[in-house]
Amino acid sequence: MDLIVPGPLLAQIDTPDDLRKLPIEQLPQVAAELRQFIIDDVSIYGGHFGASLGVVELTVALHWALNTPDDQLVWDVGHQAYGHKILTGRREQFHTNRKYGGLSGFPKRSESEYDAFGVGHSSTSISATLGMAIASRLKGEMHRRHVAVIGDGAMTAGLAFEALNHAGVSGANMLVILNDNNMSIDPNVGALKEYLTDITTSKTWNRMRDDVWNLLGKMPYPKAQRKMAAKIEATLKGMVSGSANLFEALGMRYFGPIDGHHVIKLAETIKDLAQIPGPKLLHIKTVKGKGYELAEKDQTLWHAPGTFDKITGIINKKHSPVPEPPKYQDVFGLSIIELAEMNPKIMGITPAMPSGCSLKYMMEQMPDRALDVGIAEQHAVTLSAGLATQGMKVFCNIYSSFMQRGYDMVIHDVAIQKLPVIFCLDRGGLVGDDGPTHHGAFDLAFMRCIPNMVVSAPMNESELRNLMYTAQLEETEVPFCIRYPRGQGVMPQWKTPFEKIEVGTGRRIRSGEEIAILSIGHPGNFAEAACKLLESEGLHPALYDLRFVKPLDENLLHEIAARFSKIITVEDGSVMGGFGSAVLEFFAAHHYSPEVRMLGIPDRFVEHGKPEELQHECGFDAAGICAAVRDMWGLVPVEPLPVKRQSSNGNMLN
Amino acid sequence: MDLIVPGPLLAQIDTPDDLRKLPIEQLPQVAAELRQFIIDDVSIYGGHFGASLGVVELTVALHWALNTPDDQLVWDVGHQAYGHKILTGRREQFHTNRKYGGLSGFPKRSESEYDAFGVGHSSTSISATLGMAIASRLKGEMHRRHVAVIGDGAMTAGLAFEALNHAGVSGANMLVILNDNNMSIDPNVGALKEYLTDITTSKTWNRMRDDVWNLLGKMPYPKAQRKMAAKIEATLKGMVSGSANLFEALGMRYFGPIDGHHVIKLAETIKDLAQIPGPKLLHIKTVKGKGYELAEKDQTLWHAPGTFDKITGIINKKHSPVPEPPKYQDVFGLSIIELAEMNPKIMGITPAMPSGCSLKYMMEQMPDRALDVGIAEQHAVTLSAGLATQGMKVFCNIYSSFMQRGYDMVIHDVAIQKLPVIFCLDRGGLVGDDGPTHHGAFDLAFMRCIPNMVVSAPMNESELRNLMYTAQLEETEVPFCIRYPRGQGVMPQWKTPFEKIEVGTGRRIRSGEEIAILSIGHPGNFAEAACKLLESEGLHPALYDLRFVKPLDENLLHEIAARFSKIITVEDGSVMGGFGSAVLEFFAAHHYSPEVRMLGIPDRFVEHGKPEELQHECGFDAAGICAAVRDMWGLVPVEPLPVKRQSSNGNMLN
Repeated sequence: MDLIVPGPLLAQIDTPDDLRKLPIEQLPQVAAELRQFIIDDVSIYGGHFGASLGVVELTVALHWALNTPDDQLVWDVGHQAYGHKILTGRREQFHTNRKYGGLSGFPKRSESEYDAFGVGHSSTSISATLGMAIASRLKGEMHRRHVAVIGDGAMTAGLAFEALNHAGVSGANMLVILNDNNMSIDPNVGALKEYLTDITTSKTWNRMRDDVWNLLGKMPYPKAQRKMAAKIEATLKGMVSGSANLFEALGMRYFGPIDGHHVIKLAETIKDLAQIPGPKLLHIKTVKGKGYELAEKDQTLWHAPGTFDKITGIINKKHSPVPEPPKYQDVFGLSIIELAEMNPKIMGITPAMPSGCSLKYMMEQMPDRALDVGIAEQHAVTLSAGLATQGMKVFCNIYSSFMQRGYDMVIHDVAIQKLPVIFCLDRGGLVGDDGPTHHGAFDLAFMRCIPNMVVSAPMNESELRNLMYTAQLEETEVPFCIRYPRGQGVMPQWKTPFEKIEVGTGRRIRSGEEIAILSIGHPGNFAEAACKLLESEGLHPALYDLRFVKPLDENLLHEIAARFSKIITVEDGSVMGGFGSAVLEFFAAHHYSPEVRMLGIPDRFVEHGKPEELQHECGFDAAGICAAVRDMWGLVPVEPLPVKRQSSNGNMLN
Repeated sequence: MDLIVPGPLLAQIDTPDDLRKLPIEQLPQVAAELRQFIIDDVSIYGGHFGASLGVVELTVALHWALNTPDDQLVWDVGHQAYGHKILTGRREQFHTNRKYGGLSGFPKRSESEYDAFGVGHSSTSISATLGMAIASRLKGEMHRRHVAVIGDGAMTAGLAFEALNHAGVSGANMLVILNDNNMSIDPNVGALKEYLTDITTSKTWNRMRDDVWNLLGKMPYPKAQRKMAAKIEATLKGMVSGSANLFEALGMRYFGPIDGHHVIKLAETIKDLAQIPGPKLLHIKTVKGKGYELAEKDQTLWHAPGTFDKITGIINKKHSPVPEPPKYQDVFGLSIIELAEMNPKIMGITPAMPSGCSLKYMMEQMPDRALDVGIAEQHAVTLSAGLATQGMKVFCNIYSSFMQRGYDMVIHDVAIQKLPVIFCLDRGGLVGDDGPTHHGAFDLAFMRCIPNMVVSAPMNESELRNLMYTAQLEETEVPFCIRYPRGQGVMPQWKTPFEKIEVGTGRRIRSGEEIAILSIGHPGNFAEAACKLLESEGLHPALYDLRFVKPLDENLLHEIAARFSKIITVEDGSVMGGFGSAVLEFFAAHHYSPEVRMLGIPDRFVEHGKPEELQHECGFDAAGICAAVRDMWGLVPVEPLPVKRQSSNGNMLN
């Protein structure tokens, strides 16, 4: 293991108390060392990169100016909190970041008292911080300060606005730091972004000032002119930075914009603002990737580049001697273009994930028909519903765990009206390094209870293409979910011809005896691998890929129930309420009573790690399926699962 | 049946085409007749009142100025659309409004081509209308106009902001009409409300103008002074109504505010604005309840007053000779005060439903500890999480169907961090007249799949109090859902002493034989009634109130499974994925195979009607439970259910 050597000042900082002992003049040096430490670490161990580099100075300034952890600091989204972790007692463990058993890639309450609020999804920080500030007021702890750091990209989400609307009248002592870098993972979009650019360059203010000077310049009395000009300028400035400002309109005192890379000025400003009572917003300008030239230039690529050579900037890529299967996201991103070329009604919508879901390809080729609406999942869904009323066939691509934000809109705007919107839920199942905030664990459960909704999951690339093809057909007049995992599929030759799949039909993958394995989606491949392993032991379970959680293939299930009295269901979603549960409902409704064992994500939050590690921990990888088959066959006792030290979030139920 | 007689002009208007034949001078008369028709109808048949009276002039102006239904008109929330329904071919059916089998209380696409988008929940209109406008542009239908009417209360929800942020840069031809009446059901709150009041009274602008005049007044040159003052005034005015405006900051051209009860001016303005390309916002000021004095004075009471004497204004109340059981909401609203008096950590949060959930009592008595955050369910949840990090015990009360908006926050901000927030889900189950947008059908399914979450439902008032008591105890360290229905409980003497309930324990209500009925929540009373009816037939099923969907009472279930081979589950939630499904999972996990029949809300959207009508239709009222018991007992065939004409939304699955 490569040990990252901190610079001399950083080496002395084990907690923010150590930092606060340094004079303000030394903060630039601390910032430089912190930046280098992040570059050294991420280049070797991987992780998020650009966002943390962008807030190095802010991080140093905050911990120097505030009395953390008594003062509370909430990082929105949290993938920019590497510097925060390094300064708050986790420097020496930092190489375990995002590794199975290691530090989380996000702030996490159970990891450190300095992590005031767990984050991962965007735009929660203002609400959470406001709650803390209100609690402090109620408890009479008026010395405590409460700070939320939020990016301009996160500011577009409805939750942030709801929180500002409340904060502005709350009178609560809180400071929102708007970290304006014009980026989320992809460049930001929307009116707010343009507004921020506008107030930063102060067009309005400059224009006004010019007008006034022009006016006054025509007067013949230089002295009166200067005096009046000064007065009018002050008045006007009050207006521009006063109630005329968007944030001031919402009751937040607005300060800025200031340079977010000037650590001394930042530290002084934060110290000053902390004395001012009431809700305040400080607007700082930063550059994502600051201090690493390549990262500044291509900010999307360097958001989370993997490991790289820090000298040359060459990103390490795995080289495979044989053709690799594509990522599911690219199968989506390229197939939608093929379909859109055939069907002019097709549109693509993504809330701020054009790179992550690969809609970017269509956005480049068909800019009128593929839209990034910013971090705004709710709007993405209802906009899609509006488009669907006009006959458009919208592929609305939202990560599974982010779809939790659009849930009401799926029910209320799409399903009740039976509008044929197509939801592509990328990142379904265990996503890996990002951990519990990002696992797509609940979608099968929360989608299948919605009437009118088709809920499907492809086992491979070809199935994904065919489900997409089926969903966009004119005859498919219902809302349609297609859910697939992060990462690669299984078919290097993935570009198969489109074929219609009858909605609600599954397929038999393997005939067999004694036990039937029923899988949904990509884990069908784990089951297939398990079947191959079991062959050598003389065990031959049958395998069925159900393809649809809803509607279930009732014909196939009747056939299976008639032939098998032992069933194993496999899914990469919550067992509670998910696919297996749907199968149980079918058996109950039709008076079958086979023995059913359900494999999937258990009723606890699964932590981070490689997907394979987590799938193994949950017991639905090939090894887990083999063990379940052997156990059901009555041959040998089931293999003990590894100790669940990773998921200590507590499971009250079992 | 009392027939409502329309005025002479209204009588001639069967479609908006008829309205558009009238000269603009006659619109005030049309508005007066429309207002009277609504008063006449609602006084006899009940329904929403104040909101529709407030937009009478707007409704007339819109249909006169636009070419509906080719031009598309979306009413946000939709309970203000009575005038719209009356003008668009539904006048003669209007007395069936909100009745079983009658018109919906909200716009509904399947009901009329004039209902461009189905609504019910707030703040969807801008997104939906933007979708329509973008589709029209893509299809080259540039003549079509797209209008959203949204209240200032609905404007605070995040979805509306997300939509504005996109609309402002979309260039789409759409008009947002901001109906500013300072009310939702309760008075609005938040910074936006104060901002709207501010721009309406033009404080900023007036102050600025005064400053400039004062400055200039000190100059000795009257002519130059006047000239300069005029120039500066023009410049400043441009600023105040220009980019300085909150909506203009978001890229919407802002017009107004204008009087929303001046129908001719409204009609002319809408006609004019429809010619201006791009996204626009027209701010109108209206009075909720306009034209009915009592409704103007007490806007919350007259939001939906029930039937009343239109001359005296006396609201009809049912008089009962015996004490009636209280509403569940009042048991919540009064019990939280009792608990808060004992436990200083308790707070109450509601997003805009202080009257509906009865938190208003605590807001009056303990204004620091009970907060209405406006229509902002997402914020309500994350704010509660922030408060919980500081040790507060927050009762966050959100209607079941509105909780769909806070779903991600429940998972991401509360459950992952295992914060002990208490969610009181009012309006769980079939709510009645409001119909499918408001039925709390999915909560048991979408909540029970979340790790760490306790999901409970009380069978009566005393149980609700005891669950509330249990949830706020220091030892209860997990997120805790308590879900109860709209309307009355069963205990006139409801104020029972608080008792702790062991989390995850159910109770036996009746011993019995052959069949065990397992109920959750209030429908336990239907089961109890069914058992009494069945006694006379010599049938004695056992009855268990499980109380917790999660964690299930495993001891009790083992006991039940050992004694009964026939089980009926009863819930007023979605059968798919709900309580019955949880029971099946238990049986599967423990290798029991009883025959299980699941009663509850079927897999289709149930329309509006009285709760009893809908419960009967779904087959889980006492009659339905009796039928299921008889059928399982093998005595007589199950009673046919009434034809499902009410729920024609299509059930793809069966």
